Amino acid sequence: MLSEFELIQRYFARHSVADEWLALGVGDDCALLQPTPGMQLAVSSDMLVSGRHFFPDADPFWLGHKCLAVNLSDLAAMGAQPLGFTLAFSLPEANPDWLEQFAAGLLQLADQHHCRLIGGDTTKGPLNICITILGEQPPGSALRRDAAQAGDDIWISGTLGDARLALGAYWKEVPLNSADHLQAALRMHRPTPRVALGMALRGIAHAALDISDGLAGDLGHILKRSSVGAILELDRLPAGPVLQQQTLSLRRQFTLNGGDDYELCFTAPPHRRDEVLAAARQSGTPVTRVGSIDAAPGLRLVDAAGDPVTLAFQSFDHFTTS
Amino acid sequence: MLSEFELIQRYFARHSVADEWLALGVGDDCALLQPTPGMQLAVSSDMLVSGRHFFPDADPFWLGHKCLAVNLSDLAAMGAQPLGFTLAFSLPEANPDWLEQFAAGLLQLADQHHCRLIGGDTTKGPLNICITILGEQPPGSALRRDAAQAGDDIWISGTLGDARLALGAYWKEVPLNSADHLQAALRMHRPTPRVALGMALRGIAHAALDISDGLAGDLGHILKRSSVGAILELDRLPAGPVLQQQTLSLRRQFTLNGGDDYELCFTAPPHRRDEVLAAARQSGTPVTRVGSIDAAPGLRLVDAAGDPVTLAFQSFDHFTTS
Repeated sequence: MLSEFELIQRYFARHSVADEWLALGVGDDCALLQPTPGMQLAVSSDMLVSGRHFFPDADPFWLGHKCLAVNLSDLAAMGAQPLGFTLAFSLPEANPDWLEQFAAGLLQLADQHHCRLIGGDTTKGPLNICITILGEQPPGSALRRDAAQAGDDIWISGTLGDARLALGAYWKEVPLNSADHLQAALRMHRPTPRVALGMALRGIAHAALDISDGLAGDLGHILKRSSVGAILELDRLPAGPVLQQQTLSLRRQFTLNGGDDYELCFTAPPHRRDEVLAAARQSGTPVTRVGSIDAAPGLRLVDAAGDPVTLAFQSFDHFTTS
Repeated sequence: MLSEFELIQRYFARHSVADEWLALGVGDDCALLQPTPGMQLAVSSDMLVSGRHFFPDADPFWLGHKCLAVNLSDLAAMGAQPLGFTLAFSLPEANPDWLEQFAAGLLQLADQHHCRLIGGDTTKGPLNICITILGEQPPGSALRRDAAQAGDDIWISGTLGDARLALGAYWKEVPLNSADHLQAALRMHRPTPRVALGMALRGIAHAALDISDGLAGDLGHILKRSSVGAILELDRLPAGPVLQQQTLSLRRQFTLNGGDDYELCFTAPPHRRDEVLAAARQSGTPVTRVGSIDAAPGLRLVDAAGDPVTLAFQSFDHFTTS
């Protein structure tokens, strides 16, 4: 069996040209970074657990992709430019085929974002993958959760709900033919971090976050931290292509509460709509305006006619759901 | 049961005065740091798994201490000043008593080192704790593994082997009375990160690392990366107080190969011995000179008379030991 050091060396240590900001990479007690003068560093950690965030038999290539994607998505939600990441994981065994595929999926996405693996840790144990990502951005440019203002439009990138629909099909909640199931499952397994959009929204958007646990719950964090409320036009929520073919009730439920989409939800003042649309075009990311922030606390759902809609819903929480 | 957000809020979110370098702490998609102009950032991640790095019934207060201590030890080994850390962990259940104790042990050590919790992630799963720590230091001051030079003295902080001895007693390899077992176990459960010593050695020591997997194996990393060899005077290795009472054979084995000590091993040129001793006094950390670096590859063990000693030994590796 490979030793820990051989394992890291073989699959993860890249001998590429050093970046200016990386004074020392993988292989010492710490990595050493030389931050760009005047820039702020954005830092986020996410832990993915087998059987909780992914199926135990998940394809290792796309698992590698997803583990980094959810972290890149956190940088996107701040408007930060990716720099590098540490990778710590526990594995039941050092299976060379699995590791090779996992590393390939992870590093392919890392390369797309010029994001460098700078260090990490490997150990034996139940499969668990923890990435800490670092990015940078000019001071004052971060899209914070506490920055929404009454009157702001609420926008969503891409589409929502297909990842949740795939899970519903897997759980036999929703019947899907195999082609549809596969298409929806791709959204669950291969989330697209909206890094370019987040950066393009600096100075335009007020608040932002990425939707990991469902729009209703995640938007709730913005509302709470910004001390505002919101009206969502339920039937403007952009449903994924497979979900669009489902019943209205399912569309509403899954666009509002489906997790694992990793789209951005952000707010911006109405007089900047053109700039938001330009940022979307520039980053090649569709965006949809779905509601507005107001001063009254709480989240109000309305239909196309503006009439209130009541749905029972709950955001995903790791310790209140089984 | 507590929700994820209540959990973080209740046990880990401190509303202390903001540090100048911390623009945004726990609660957004990312933490935001404003690095001190001109300084380098040191970054390290360590993952601790139940049943592997600690007993499943480990005291949660000291487990919290240990999880941060092993990360602070990585900063110490670079000579970096601690700034802050992210905490990601998976738990089988959100047990309030356990969490309160874990947070207390973790945050007590964090406070001692003025090291701030800046973000994290919690999820349900087998107990696994991953900390990523950030520190800073002036460019060029890092104690790197690749910087040892032929002629350097080799030094060790504190004492070695008591943590391994405690494990030996637990495994019934070694008989210990309960008082001795307890004293040795304290070294295993409550490692002392040598942060002040690491910082005091900037500009004096050449290479350094912290001993987590055993001196022989860990010193091997310095030798390999620095393309040098070493002579260790085996009976100068500083044994812990309980280990000192054991047989010569056990002392040799456990000082050389015992893991979990988190002492520093560092090299410095002989003409700086007085400065090394002054750094040790200044930081209140005993140090012992145990050998020297030479140009011939490999690690040579000698006794007090300078005669070669042959020991069968192996460093701890997570994937080659069961």
